[in-house]
Amino acid sequence: MNNIVKPSILPGFMELLPKEQIEFNRIKDIIKETYEMYGFIPVDTPLIEKSEILLAKGGGETEKQIYRFTKGDTDMSLRFDLTVPLARYVALHSENLNFPFRRYHIGKVYRGERNQRGRFREFYQCDIDIIGNGELSIINDAEIPSIIYSIFKKLDFGPFTIRINNRKILNGFFNQVTKSDKGAILRTIDKLDKIGETKVKEELKEIGAYDAEIERILDFISIKGSNDEVLGSLKNLNIENEEFIKGLEELSLVVHYIKGFNVPEDNFKIDLTIARGLDYYTGTIYETTLNEYPGIGSVCSGGRYDNLAEYYTKAKLPGVGISIGLTRLFYQLTEAGFIKEGKSSTTSKVLIIPMGDVMEYSIDTAGRLRENNISCEIYFEEAKAKKKFSYGDKLGLEYAIIIGEEEKENKVVSLKNLKTGDQVKLSIEQVISKLR
Amino acid sequence: MNNIVKPSILPGFMELLPKEQIEFNRIKDIIKETYEMYGFIPVDTPLIEKSEILLAKGGGETEKQIYRFTKGDTDMSLRFDLTVPLARYVALHSENLNFPFRRYHIGKVYRGERNQRGRFREFYQCDIDIIGNGELSIINDAEIPSIIYSIFKKLDFGPFTIRINNRKILNGFFNQVTKSDKGAILRTIDKLDKIGETKVKEELKEIGAYDAEIERILDFISIKGSNDEVLGSLKNLNIENEEFIKGLEELSLVVHYIKGFNVPEDNFKIDLTIARGLDYYTGTIYETTLNEYPGIGSVCSGGRYDNLAEYYTKAKLPGVGISIGLTRLFYQLTEAGFIKEGKSSTTSKVLIIPMGDVMEYSIDTAGRLRENNISCEIYFEEAKAKKKFSYGDKLGLEYAIIIGEEEKENKVVSLKNLKTGDQVKLSIEQVISKLR
Repeated sequence: MNNIVKPSILPGFMELLPKEQIEFNRIKDIIKETYEMYGFIPVDTPLIEKSEILLAKGGGETEKQIYRFTKGDTDMSLRFDLTVPLARYVALHSENLNFPFRRYHIGKVYRGERNQRGRFREFYQCDIDIIGNGELSIINDAEIPSIIYSIFKKLDFGPFTIRINNRKILNGFFNQVTKSDKGAILRTIDKLDKIGETKVKEELKEIGAYDAEIERILDFISIKGSNDEVLGSLKNLNIENEEFIKGLEELSLVVHYIKGFNVPEDNFKIDLTIARGLDYYTGTIYETTLNEYPGIGSVCSGGRYDNLAEYYTKAKLPGVGISIGLTRLFYQLTEAGFIKEGKSSTTSKVLIIPMGDVMEYSIDTAGRLRENNISCEIYFEEAKAKKKFSYGDKLGLEYAIIIGEEEKENKVVSLKNLKTGDQVKLSIEQVISKLR
Repeated sequence: MNNIVKPSILPGFMELLPKEQIEFNRIKDIIKETYEMYGFIPVDTPLIEKSEILLAKGGGETEKQIYRFTKGDTDMSLRFDLTVPLARYVALHSENLNFPFRRYHIGKVYRGERNQRGRFREFYQCDIDIIGNGELSIINDAEIPSIIYSIFKKLDFGPFTIRINNRKILNGFFNQVTKSDKGAILRTIDKLDKIGETKVKEELKEIGAYDAEIERILDFISIKGSNDEVLGSLKNLNIENEEFIKGLEELSLVVHYIKGFNVPEDNFKIDLTIARGLDYYTGTIYETTLNEYPGIGSVCSGGRYDNLAEYYTKAKLPGVGISIGLTRLFYQLTEAGFIKEGKSSTTSKVLIIPMGDVMEYSIDTAGRLRENNISCEIYFEEAKAKKKFSYGDKLGLEYAIIIGEEEKENKVVSLKNLKTGDQVKLSIEQVISKLR
């Protein structure tokens, strides 16, 4: 007799039951299929990398949160995102890649976050990036929202808004109107939704902005209206800053082309308050919010950057990309009661229940169904009829095929609707066309 | 300017280029779809588990090879297979599972193997198991080979043989004929193919078997013929050992039902020399070999066990399962020149090439194609025509759609076959029906 170790998993790790897992996979598959529909190429990199690679940029939260260990005399770490491995991949294999390189990667990443409800230490990211060699057309920035739109329309989590901004506009504007710490200002206005205008004013004052500057900043971020109206208002600010002008030109082009991609105006909005961190993005930035669940925050974010792989190569590799943090999204939508749990907790479409000495005929029937792309399983165990049906019920199946001696003799099957209890005798061909 | 860290990955980790990755994923998808066709349920467990869980069984190679580390004061490890996590999952969630529990799991596992060509420290396993609660019908053991058959038939790696044996037959027979160390005998006869009969005899003698015993053992493992002939010969041995008799009964039933599952006799063979390790399996055991590449060894193995989760629960959970070590298989088939690299290194079916001021019409065309499930991408960059076509060529695409001002005006597109150079003007509807 062994000693029993009480079964458990580590805190901060998500593990799903079959019904939830099937729903999770359905969402993951929609994301994957959409990425492939737009011609993105799958990449699958090791979960473990050399620490010197993952920490080439160094510093900050990342280094504290990383799972780092040694085996033999090798210093290695679990990846904490999919972007650093992408940079390393492109730098390592650039000779064998075709640019612009459109890659998608759906995989798990690891961060030793503080243990807290809704925070995960292992989570799926679903990323796409388009990497140019030397340069990359701004039209790529307009294609990205159309991909976000396709995904969230299919996912059917209710109305959503893709928010878009441009870092050059922010940088140019703040450089023009104030000498105070730009980073601190961006962080403050990013909080507008949460803390309100009065508090934002106070914080800007603390940062050292003058009253007149604060007025201009608040006027700027309160610019509202249709996308064309916002572009008009930005133009009317008459900011004579090169970076601002370049950013406005980019944003105008992006807005123009997004319309061409048939993203409805309702789902796409310029939002001058989004900033997306400080040092990575250099142009277009995206956030996506579910209108009915603003508290969830952004469910799909990203942007344009000038140089993907500066720590691994001297080649200039500009890119644009987005990421969906699927594990957290799934958790939050479940908490919000928004995930409609799949009806079924199996991949079988139908359960075959043999009654009596009919196993060979049942096996044969299963083979016929599978040849016709109908997934199924047979209840092989010896058990009372009630137990067999209860198995099908618990799997959430709509149909069972019952096979008794009579069915076998007449080369038919009985198809039972497990919800209504209705039962009809059908030929195998009829069952196939009914279930298909 | 940053210091450049030379991009590289850890030794023993596989990373693929796009063309290889697409072929790898195609194989992985066939395995997944077949598992689902038989009603197996997806399970996805954390890659990191508590060390006390993974090492509950303890001892041996596993403990030396495991990636084990601490974060904070938690002792954790990367999973080294998918079976231990399954045992922990079933023990932890048994109240919420429906038995027999049919689960599949395709995921990466980690072993700090000696650094050696063809050995991987991170590799995919593709597992199915059927777990009973208390008991599990022997017919499940006959279904497994039909799943192996479906997969390797679709994979099209040439002729293959599913070898089957039963541990009870081996145990019963050896207990009957000799008092020497059974484990040592099994290990020796497992090497018959490699070292030949003379050497096997010598080793058996060293183990302490008498000459008469060695004769009986060699007679036993040289039993040949059709499956029915082998069963007949085993019966004619008249071994009066309870375990042997039980094993023979099981094997006879498995052979009987496998035929029902339409596995051709050519693909399925009783092989009394396969033993599959020593302490885990208790009944049916499987190995699968590619007839043209016997050197690769077994590409899909598994068997029946009495008790899945004895380290985590007192419940008796018998099961039967198989595993495909996909990373090693892919590597070996590539080395053998057997992997037909995909023609294409992208998920796009077609590349749209705009020539001139036709971007909006090109974007619109792409939308129409995607609505009709034809994956595509647009070459957005400004470049000479030659560069645009070269991009399509390098992706290995068969077709490009060329859109110039004339095409735009006439609401048509030009479809160019990139292999032959042929080009025709077609309406969008015509292109859709051609590419679909």
